[in-house]
Amino acid sequence: MDNDDFRRGIPTSHKVYGEAVAILAGDALLTEAFRLMTDRGAMRDVPPERLLDVAREIAEAAGFSGMIAGQAVDIASEGIPPDGETLDFIHSRKTERMITVSLRAGAILAGAEAGALEALTGYGRRIGLAFQISDDILNVEGTAEALGKGTGSDAARKKLTYPALYGLESSKEKARALAGEAVRCLDRFGDEAQPLRALATYIVERNN
Amino acid sequence: MDNDDFRRGIPTSHKVYGEAVAILAGDALLTEAFRLMTDRGAMRDVPPERLLDVAREIAEAAGFSGMIAGQAVDIASEGIPPDGETLDFIHSRKTERMITVSLRAGAILAGAEAGALEALTGYGRRIGLAFQISDDILNVEGTAEALGKGTGSDAARKKLTYPALYGLESSKEKARALAGEAVRCLDRFGDEAQPLRALATYIVERNN
Repeated sequence: MDNDDFRRGIPTSHKVYGEAVAILAGDALLTEAFRLMTDRGAMRDVPPERLLDVAREIAEAAGFSGMIAGQAVDIASEGIPPDGETLDFIHSRKTERMITVSLRAGAILAGAEAGALEALTGYGRRIGLAFQISDDILNVEGTAEALGKGTGSDAARKKLTYPALYGLESSKEKARALAGEAVRCLDRFGDEAQPLRALATYIVERNN
Repeated sequence: MDNDDFRRGIPTSHKVYGEAVAILAGDALLTEAFRLMTDRGAMRDVPPERLLDVAREIAEAAGFSGMIAGQAVDIASEGIPPDGETLDFIHSRKTERMITVSLRAGAILAGAEAGALEALTGYGRRIGLAFQISDDILNVEGTAEALGKGTGSDAARKKLTYPALYGLESSKEKARALAGEAVRCLDRFGDEAQPLRALATYIVERNN
């Protein structure tokens, strides 16, 4: 989509195998994801209703009103002067919803009750946005070595990002504040939520 | 994939909207298909087990060992001298499996017993192959007007096809024989299978 030659230090598929094969590989992985999600033989302990609900929620989060909408608007916005509403739309679709549905999927499969599901949803939205902001910050500040891909590419394409819109310092503050809010969403849980608390901190402190 | 400028008389997506948007539209439609298939609210009368089984079978037929494998081998075979085994692999993956799973999906949702399911599977395999052979024949013999796309494009690309491998007359005979076998697979059904019998005939007699 962004036509980058590298991802995490490795040449991208379309450069190595050509566009047709890269597109097919994407379609194959997307289809295989749904094959796995609907394989009740592999998930014998989970009631079929829950498997259906999880597959449907993931399809909604990834589909034309979710991640794909975000990616489409992201592409359409290159070279256009930044606007906060558009940026929020892109981030909520591209990142927040995928992270949130990952949390919800596990909780639904495990039979979580409504309150726990709501708490995890609140946590997911906040770390999702924090992740995207910190990704934008790393594109400005990170080293190509640590990231395994080029930096400064967003600015070169006049891409809409948090640092471009609000500046680097405000963006960092916003990311840290979101991580703090995310941790507070988990107050109803005990020690079992410790990995999620650590993850919120990691997201805003990572350097790749 | 074949980089054609027209499909059914209409300019192709990647020509009108660009490659990135065309790829996203494909991903969106693929994802939406699974969202619909896993929406148990819209399918309240069908037991959830059946919905899962249908979604999984469709994912298998479409995925990396099904349609996508056929398409990948098809692309990799352009410009290479034809070979019957490769041609059968491509046709069984690209066409037969998708047509067969369409028949099985309806039957599974309706709660068909094993014998009926097997009969429909045999019918599907045969009309699937007949469809692909007649598609290849039309690419040689059809008019651009009736097809709404260019003809002769397979030959220009030295594409592996039935007419290229076995000649036009043998290909027509093979397609007609398959349609006949397909109809005999339906012997256990009564008048309710009449539309399927008509479809088998239509596939080998169509001109677009």
